[in-house]
Amino acid sequence: MSGQAAQDAIGVGLIGFGTIGTGVVKVLAENATQIEERLGFPLRLVRIADLDTESDRGVDLTGIQFDADASGLIADPNVHIVIELIGGYDVPRKFILEAFAAGKHVVTANKALLALHGREIFGAAADAGLDIAFEAAVGGGIPILRSLREGLAANQIETVLGILNGTTNYVLTEMESTGEDFEVVLKRAQDLGYAEADPTFDVEGIDAAHKLALLTAMAFGAELTFEEIPTEGIRGLLPIDFELAEEFGYRIKLLGVARCHRAADGSERIEARVQPTMVPKAAMLANVDGAMNAVEVVGNAVGRTLYYGAGAGEMPTASAVVADLMEIAREIRRSGSGPVAPLSYLPEHIVPKPTVSESELTGRAYLRITARDEPGVLSRITGALGAQGIGIASVVQRESAAKPGGVVPVIVLTHEANQASLRSALDQIAGLAEVVEPPRVIRIEEEV
Amino acid sequence: MSGQAAQDAIGVGLIGFGTIGTGVVKVLAENATQIEERLGFPLRLVRIADLDTESDRGVDLTGIQFDADASGLIADPNVHIVIELIGGYDVPRKFILEAFAAGKHVVTANKALLALHGREIFGAAADAGLDIAFEAAVGGGIPILRSLREGLAANQIETVLGILNGTTNYVLTEMESTGEDFEVVLKRAQDLGYAEADPTFDVEGIDAAHKLALLTAMAFGAELTFEEIPTEGIRGLLPIDFELAEEFGYRIKLLGVARCHRAADGSERIEARVQPTMVPKAAMLANVDGAMNAVEVVGNAVGRTLYYGAGAGEMPTASAVVADLMEIAREIRRSGSGPVAPLSYLPEHIVPKPTVSESELTGRAYLRITARDEPGVLSRITGALGAQGIGIASVVQRESAAKPGGVVPVIVLTHEANQASLRSALDQIAGLAEVVEPPRVIRIEEEV
Repeated sequence: MSGQAAQDAIGVGLIGFGTIGTGVVKVLAENATQIEERLGFPLRLVRIADLDTESDRGVDLTGIQFDADASGLIADPNVHIVIELIGGYDVPRKFILEAFAAGKHVVTANKALLALHGREIFGAAADAGLDIAFEAAVGGGIPILRSLREGLAANQIETVLGILNGTTNYVLTEMESTGEDFEVVLKRAQDLGYAEADPTFDVEGIDAAHKLALLTAMAFGAELTFEEIPTEGIRGLLPIDFELAEEFGYRIKLLGVARCHRAADGSERIEARVQPTMVPKAAMLANVDGAMNAVEVVGNAVGRTLYYGAGAGEMPTASAVVADLMEIAREIRRSGSGPVAPLSYLPEHIVPKPTVSESELTGRAYLRITARDEPGVLSRITGALGAQGIGIASVVQRESAAKPGGVVPVIVLTHEANQASLRSALDQIAGLAEVVEPPRVIRIEEEV
Repeated sequence: MSGQAAQDAIGVGLIGFGTIGTGVVKVLAENATQIEERLGFPLRLVRIADLDTESDRGVDLTGIQFDADASGLIADPNVHIVIELIGGYDVPRKFILEAFAAGKHVVTANKALLALHGREIFGAAADAGLDIAFEAAVGGGIPILRSLREGLAANQIETVLGILNGTTNYVLTEMESTGEDFEVVLKRAQDLGYAEADPTFDVEGIDAAHKLALLTAMAFGAELTFEEIPTEGIRGLLPIDFELAEEFGYRIKLLGVARCHRAADGSERIEARVQPTMVPKAAMLANVDGAMNAVEVVGNAVGRTLYYGAGAGEMPTASAVVADLMEIAREIRRSGSGPVAPLSYLPEHIVPKPTVSESELTGRAYLRITARDEPGVLSRITGALGAQGIGIASVVQRESAAKPGGVVPVIVLTHEANQASLRSALDQIAGLAEVVEPPRVIRIEEEV
């Protein structure tokens, strides 16, 4: 890094070098170009503090001071923003307040701390005129807090609800698909690293309730304390519950639900709870499987919206932490760099980029070929595909009442095929004497 | 409004008083309290310009100057932010450039204009040091642009794809569910107001391509022009395509897809297209029905995320326009009001709000009651429910291999019932001699 760049950089200090902390180091390194092209200057991780200074996290720490001295990190004049990723209550609380006292902005992912000590911490930030950012605290990488706070800021929020805990959603999804008992599935989730050795916070709904307390404050301006949220976990659900939910047209999800009841006089009362809940199978939320999270927000103007993504994990959570860093860094540099670039990248980094030609793309396709129903037509069609090396997954030839005179639709579902080869085959098919209309292609996207 | 408040307010001028303009007037009026509690000062709509000054839009215009003089509005010193909601190209382009020349920030929903003349308009904004905001241009009320630009800013975006046009998604959903022909469904969509009299922009995929051009610039920093996006509409799809898609495990959606191919040397090429596409039935996107929109964004850190909501319409689009107004107003007032409040509402507006007691809530429930299989037990259980006025939708009593000794689960699905009554009935059921475990309740949320 050049002296000029180093001087221009905003310095970041990381307290807590576990899974998410490691993700933050990776994101800052791997995506440094994109971050600087959006921000106009680099973010530089200058210091890391963790009691475990021995373990190899598999990341390059060149140029980064790494020791166990969190207070030294906070006091370091090269650190402008402190990331707290320790977890727990007392120690992170102490470091966050210490950071504000030292005039440092703070980014944290600690929902438990904010749900229980939010008043003190947000108050200290406001008193110091410093930022506290915590996008990673709810929904992992999903930008749900930003959406609620800014994107939907023009609404009276009516409802916030969602699948706020990936561990329990993984267990519920597995119980449903395998018919196994809770304890069996939980054990497997623990073996796979989806559940912690002590799964109480997740399984009893406490983690979801922490997140719901934060969402409730943001959605309704309600200083609802975590203790007021009735919380019920997923222990005690039996295979028969999933079986009958299916029969009745539902799926079982651990939902956090908060609604604002607004009276005609404008007074507001809050309904909030975390509990296993049945949702109609066709609902978007019912299709959120495995360790994924999703949050629905209903506003009086926007109607129903939903935000879906990985609710936990090293890289998704780091994505949210670094987004917070970028926002705060932009604030710090404000006088120089101006507001967020309208197209995300700074104008000088919006450049023409070449397009990929169809010949390089592969994919499965659905082909509808309208042909006269004559002997050999199917063989000529499949032959044209075969000549281009295109495998066939399925062929359907049906009588069509709508097309009299022996004209039938021939449907072909291809295997993965090069698009240029497909185009050639289709040109050949279109030229067959029996084919009466240009073939219709519908591309299949498996990865959506 | 007091003189003090009026003085503190940021003044807004609206050019274009059609459906969305009317929605903006409604949102500013109906949600004025929430807006001010989040912002710290009011937004005041001071002026509206539209060539049609006669039609009654059904909103109160007291205190708002309304005439056909857009240039006068732009020049008005009480107008700090200009909203452009005219549509089209030449006229809005002229007004937007005029606004920048007059030192006014601009909010627009005009994707066609930005997709075709973005370079000029973003350039003029940057030259003037003014904001251009356009959240409403893609995905209606869904805060997808903010999410891409800020929430996911730490990512190398790999893919942006989605259902970007509500009209075509409505037509596809209807064709699928009714088996009717395209023209029949389109006609009905027109009658219901879901499709315009001239549906070309929607049906041919042009509107979706405009939006994809904006998403592509934001996601990849690629100055991809709209003309480079191969675009195919939904005309020509037949009922048989939907029938066979179903059979093969897919649903047909008009998808806009943009991917960034990054080579090892860091060079980037863009794959982009709009076309009818089959997506696996279990995918979240496959379950986006009717006039709804959804956008998926895949980032190298965050993984797969999805954003869902109403892609058009008076109030959802107005929600996005007013969110943009709030962001710009905050920028204008910055020196006084500081950054976005961390909990969305300003600290003094985060107040304790009472909770709603369970006795006031109603809902359907799934009950699992574990009881000895003795004569009369079912009648005593249903009797306890009936005594509390709780209707029964379904009862299932099964032999359970897991519970020897004549113990069976009795499952009851209730109709909508008061929760306090349900609690009383369950207390009574728990006290029955045959009932061997506390009943398990799973609440049903129909509205998710």
